[in-house]
Amino acid sequence: MASVVLGIDIGGTNIEYGLITKEGENMYSSFMKTEEIESIQQLAENLKAEITPILKKEKLKLHGIGIGSPKGNYLTGCIEFAVNLPWKGVVEINSIFEEVFGVSTILTNDANAAAYGEKMYGVAQDMRNFMVITLGTGIGTGFFMNGQLQHGQHGNAGELGHISNDPLGRECNCGKLGCLERYASATGIALSAREKIEFYKGSSQLSKIAPSEITAKNITAAAKKGDPLALELFDDTSRILGNALANITTLLDLEAFVFAGGLANAKRILTEPTKRYMDENLMEDFKSKVQIVCSGLLSENSAIFGAAALYWNEKN
Amino acid sequence: MASVVLGIDIGGTNIEYGLITKEGENMYSSFMKTEEIESIQQLAENLKAEITPILKKEKLKLHGIGIGSPKGNYLTGCIEFAVNLPWKGVVEINSIFEEVFGVSTILTNDANAAAYGEKMYGVAQDMRNFMVITLGTGIGTGFFMNGQLQHGQHGNAGELGHISNDPLGRECNCGKLGCLERYASATGIALSAREKIEFYKGSSQLSKIAPSEITAKNITAAAKKGDPLALELFDDTSRILGNALANITTLLDLEAFVFAGGLANAKRILTEPTKRYMDENLMEDFKSKVQIVCSGLLSENSAIFGAAALYWNEKN
Repeated sequence: MASVVLGIDIGGTNIEYGLITKEGENMYSSFMKTEEIESIQQLAENLKAEITPILKKEKLKLHGIGIGSPKGNYLTGCIEFAVNLPWKGVVEINSIFEEVFGVSTILTNDANAAAYGEKMYGVAQDMRNFMVITLGTGIGTGFFMNGQLQHGQHGNAGELGHISNDPLGRECNCGKLGCLERYASATGIALSAREKIEFYKGSSQLSKIAPSEITAKNITAAAKKGDPLALELFDDTSRILGNALANITTLLDLEAFVFAGGLANAKRILTEPTKRYMDENLMEDFKSKVQIVCSGLLSENSAIFGAAALYWNEKN
Repeated sequence: MASVVLGIDIGGTNIEYGLITKEGENMYSSFMKTEEIESIQQLAENLKAEITPILKKEKLKLHGIGIGSPKGNYLTGCIEFAVNLPWKGVVEINSIFEEVFGVSTILTNDANAAAYGEKMYGVAQDMRNFMVITLGTGIGTGFFMNGQLQHGQHGNAGELGHISNDPLGRECNCGKLGCLERYASATGIALSAREKIEFYKGSSQLSKIAPSEITAKNITAAAKKGDPLALELFDDTSRILGNALANITTLLDLEAFVFAGGLANAKRILTEPTKRYMDENLMEDFKSKVQIVCSGLLSENSAIFGAAALYWNEKN
């Protein structure tokens, strides 16, 4: 009977999960819509109802649970003030999952889980100083320095999405103005499209879509076909992101940034201009020393693997 | 015969040094003017000429040498492209000191040395996640995460002075525009004074000094007497620094920032408004969790102690 860990990636749009062996094989995966889940109790019960017959049928033993969530705090086992999730305030999660499933549970930030996944199974296996940036509904970051995943003093390290891009800029759910994730996430590029679309009537295929319906996925598809507005949006996004990454490089001297999440599916359309803008904003001795690459687990969700791997390494 | 390590702090203005025991006692200290030293070879030879009779007289054995320098690279033993020092390009230092003195030598960034000093002997002895910021000719930073001093992938981590404050701002020696150290260092606040002085003729005691002669020391002394221009300059500096520290907190989730270097002598005149501006720019769950304190070794130079302690811990 093979053992598996239930790896869960909680996102602003979807909750994705898989049954992962110690060797990193995904035995089953699926997802739920985040907005349809009213509470963590309901999430745990729904997952148990779905997973139990599968474990039985596939002759798998559930060894534990690893969860990655925005504002998931490794140190407290709680989701704390996540602005992009429906459950507000401080939400206990480890204790509820442990009660429902009867197995030990480990929680971390979704981007930390993604970083752990890249370190164990993805593009960062040989890296010691790198940052995974998830460009989805918001922006999350998980980073290793000197070979260690960094949680920070209170378990909140890596909130790149909420560094300031423009003190008078777009309103953010966190209460501040101009946070980076209002510009350089999947949500952010769609907001930028809505601002610019009226100037591109006729010349952009995106003008056929109602402005409120434009998504990062539409923009990426259009950019791949050479659409001028879509390419301009990627250039704008890359400039903002590249400037931010230059500052992070100047501070942390990393070897690579790894892009994950929905917007990373644009691949070179995003990474190449971001690298160019980053290098333009770096001092001479930092220039060209840091790579920007896409997740090695893009099609599979690095956070599910990372959350499971964190469990296998730390709880086992 | 007691053993000592020669701890050296190379700065843009002065080179300070001391003979430090393993227990952190300073047996002798002095300094040279940086601009009077033409080469590292000359520095090593001058120091040897000065130190040798003191070692003999005090019956001390020189065990090794620890050096902190702007752009001092722990991994290579070279000072690399230091914009505020007279020696340009990549300058070998460990090998020259080892040849002149005949003892092993360790090099790190001056701010890393200061951070090590605070961790070993100063205010950060019980901290695991903190950043020391030296506010002198430039700005340097050394930081511990998860209890470890972080050097970065290429030994260049911590160049806070060269993150962008304003992409169209003041020219920096590094070739970029608007670097933080052109605003929030001892040099930066003096530049701000020169911009504002003409609007304060008569109302500020600083207007009695020729604009090009105003220093951070003058401004600090005036602020302590309630001078309106000096207080405004500290408010401007604190706002810029507070915004930057909010972004670093959001990214690294530290427990404290420790200010060192010349401008830190202003103490509360600098730390209190900086803390206020930082908290104003933080998300709710980061607010009030990070302290700003001044170095516990301000009068003694934490970098000398740190450079020596680094040697005692890593080479001994």
